[in-house]
Amino acid sequence: MAKKPNAFYAQSGGVTAVINASACGVIETARKVPDRIGKLFAGRHGILGALQEDLIDTGKESAEAIRALRHTPAGAFGSARYKLKGLDENRAEYERLIEVFKAHDIRYFFYNGGGDSQDTAHKVSLIGEQLDYPIICVGIPKTVDNDLPLTDCCPGFGSVAKYVATSTREAAFDVASMARTSTKVFVLEVMGRHAGWITAACGLAADKPGQAPHILLFPEIPFQQAAFLQRVQQTVEEKGYCVIAVSEGLRSPDGQFLSDSGLRDAFGHAQLGGVAPVIANLVREHLGYKYHWAVADYLQRAARHIASKTDVAQAYAMGKAAVQFALKGHNAVMPTIVRESSKPYRWSVGMVPLSEVANQEKMLPSDFITPDGFGITPKCRRYLEPLIAGEDYPPYKKGLPDYVTLKNSAVPKKLKSEFKM
Amino acid sequence: MAKKPNAFYAQSGGVTAVINASACGVIETARKVPDRIGKLFAGRHGILGALQEDLIDTGKESAEAIRALRHTPAGAFGSARYKLKGLDENRAEYERLIEVFKAHDIRYFFYNGGGDSQDTAHKVSLIGEQLDYPIICVGIPKTVDNDLPLTDCCPGFGSVAKYVATSTREAAFDVASMARTSTKVFVLEVMGRHAGWITAACGLAADKPGQAPHILLFPEIPFQQAAFLQRVQQTVEEKGYCVIAVSEGLRSPDGQFLSDSGLRDAFGHAQLGGVAPVIANLVREHLGYKYHWAVADYLQRAARHIASKTDVAQAYAMGKAAVQFALKGHNAVMPTIVRESSKPYRWSVGMVPLSEVANQEKMLPSDFITPDGFGITPKCRRYLEPLIAGEDYPPYKKGLPDYVTLKNSAVPKKLKSEFKM
Repeated sequence: MAKKPNAFYAQSGGVTAVINASACGVIETARKVPDRIGKLFAGRHGILGALQEDLIDTGKESAEAIRALRHTPAGAFGSARYKLKGLDENRAEYERLIEVFKAHDIRYFFYNGGGDSQDTAHKVSLIGEQLDYPIICVGIPKTVDNDLPLTDCCPGFGSVAKYVATSTREAAFDVASMARTSTKVFVLEVMGRHAGWITAACGLAADKPGQAPHILLFPEIPFQQAAFLQRVQQTVEEKGYCVIAVSEGLRSPDGQFLSDSGLRDAFGHAQLGGVAPVIANLVREHLGYKYHWAVADYLQRAARHIASKTDVAQAYAMGKAAVQFALKGHNAVMPTIVRESSKPYRWSVGMVPLSEVANQEKMLPSDFITPDGFGITPKCRRYLEPLIAGEDYPPYKKGLPDYVTLKNSAVPKKLKSEFKM
Repeated sequence: MAKKPNAFYAQSGGVTAVINASACGVIETARKVPDRIGKLFAGRHGILGALQEDLIDTGKESAEAIRALRHTPAGAFGSARYKLKGLDENRAEYERLIEVFKAHDIRYFFYNGGGDSQDTAHKVSLIGEQLDYPIICVGIPKTVDNDLPLTDCCPGFGSVAKYVATSTREAAFDVASMARTSTKVFVLEVMGRHAGWITAACGLAADKPGQAPHILLFPEIPFQQAAFLQRVQQTVEEKGYCVIAVSEGLRSPDGQFLSDSGLRDAFGHAQLGGVAPVIANLVREHLGYKYHWAVADYLQRAARHIASKTDVAQAYAMGKAAVQFALKGHNAVMPTIVRESSKPYRWSVGMVPLSEVANQEKMLPSDFITPDGFGITPKCRRYLEPLIAGEDYPPYKKGLPDYVTLKNSAVPKKLKSEFKM
């Protein structure tokens, strides 16, 4: 019997609570077809693992460990923020990838990432053709930012959305308790540097109109300080307190990030990051209200303990579909999530060419934002609600989520050359 | 049959994920003895509700709503940061309390709070005696800071501990994935201005020695910048990344809060709060590592979605015991949690006089901190582990925890005088 071709899987960019669920989908599906796929390698630290021939043999992991990936956040093989340049700019990188793939008889390339990564996967498919090395490239969508085009949503987003909506609701209950004699304004900073999907999800915390959060500050809407402060004051006067969710990417009308708006440390250096304290300070300066602020940062995208069941299922399905597409010979494609219906929520798996996905960002549509710019519309709620539905709790041990750490055994190198990054 | 005496319950100080579970314990227990306790009133916004005769009739709430308090975070009746002065300094306040209690035939006073509140409850019992108004005062322990003396732990702490340990573990998985090409240092700021119990709990995230978090910065240990930076560098060189948990109350050797250490906004005003960005900036200045930081703030103490089952059970038990003690005629006491054994964990309910509880803070013992000042000892782990054990998930609706908001019906006023605060 002829030797079966091998496959390569890599995680790319910022990790999520469910990217390992996609890995689980890839590995479990590949393991079911030993007659079609030989070994499944993973890149240690994403695409760097391929460039540096630092491959992980996923075959050394037990079925139990692979199953545990489904409930383990972050990137089990390591991810990388490393964007391959254009084919003309740095052809050597692409040729190196093919060299490594050839050395390890890798004929399937699964790349789990956002827009940049889909672009890379597309380019690898092109160079494969040019170099006459048959390789099937399938992208697997992943991004907490939910900004990939052509798919109804992105695995990773639903779980962040559930976390930020829950956190907003919980903090709002807290502030409501305290407002009479203490904190009146609470500011929660969330991710989403360009697209306001995560900020919008905070709006789900309100079950009825008028409930917290009272103000959402989207990256798509330039910050109008006077209107904002007026709304804060009005809300505190009417409700007794005001809860605000703000995107890390909020900008002033002149395009500057508010997080860069002049905080200096004792040495006079710019204080990077943190739009929440900037907003809170504005409130204090102009209105004098006592405030608290939180910056969720990595906590939000790593919060597997409160993952959305829908999101976990979709992340797994994307990994599974990627392998199935590859086996059917579909090259340079990406599985997508297709919304069949919102109420009841029904979805299926679609497929798009990578050439159409690459390098596009899907912003929050304007009809998802209320005319005043501070809230979400019913249409937005209908879109978001199914994505946070259902709980998918990890197992616990000694009171803490029991996440898996893989062995990540190295595959012996076959090439003599080292690749200089 | 003679009219039954009424009872008054109030929530005080910063709220927690489980203070409403104590309220649930008080109310459900009182409802079982209608022959002993007439109405159970709650103070709207804590003790302010008593001073201003703004009482809530908990009898108007359904059994289902009261049951839901057990899984609802924050203070359902409103809390207050309002410390009554000494008996000699402001006797009028205490006399007013007695006036309101007398008007509503309140003979039981349940006060749910931290050290200051236990002091207040104690003083109310003294003024009752002086004014010859028979009132039984029972304190109910509550504080996320875990700094009350005489009780093995405080309701509220176990759930914060579970949240911060889980968040630390999840963020550590994230940073480990990203460290090769991106973030190498992650800083999580947690509560606990004077006592390092919450910071210590972050240490539970490490299942084995050497795992993240690598550095804990306690409020009890003056910040040694050089030793800290050396440890960060060493950790990044050995492990590839470094996870740090820092108390909001970290101080420099001269006693200054690091969070006040010189951040200025664009107007030159001090930027209040946020020791995490100060620590992260130090790392950037001196070591140049890419960093991320998070400030959990209210998210940690409101995080009922990941409450500790042990903590919820203890919070409920404290409320229940308070009513039982009162019915037995115990005055000026507080129920406590007594640890019978750590492995297996067994606890029982104790009782201490309020005079012994008041105005003491229980710091982290020095043998709970490793000699280098950056970690917790096995003894500390043995103490902490049972407190985060077990999950007690709230019900969910539309993907979010389904928390209750009470009707909080006002009791008609009987006094003509208004009380000026």
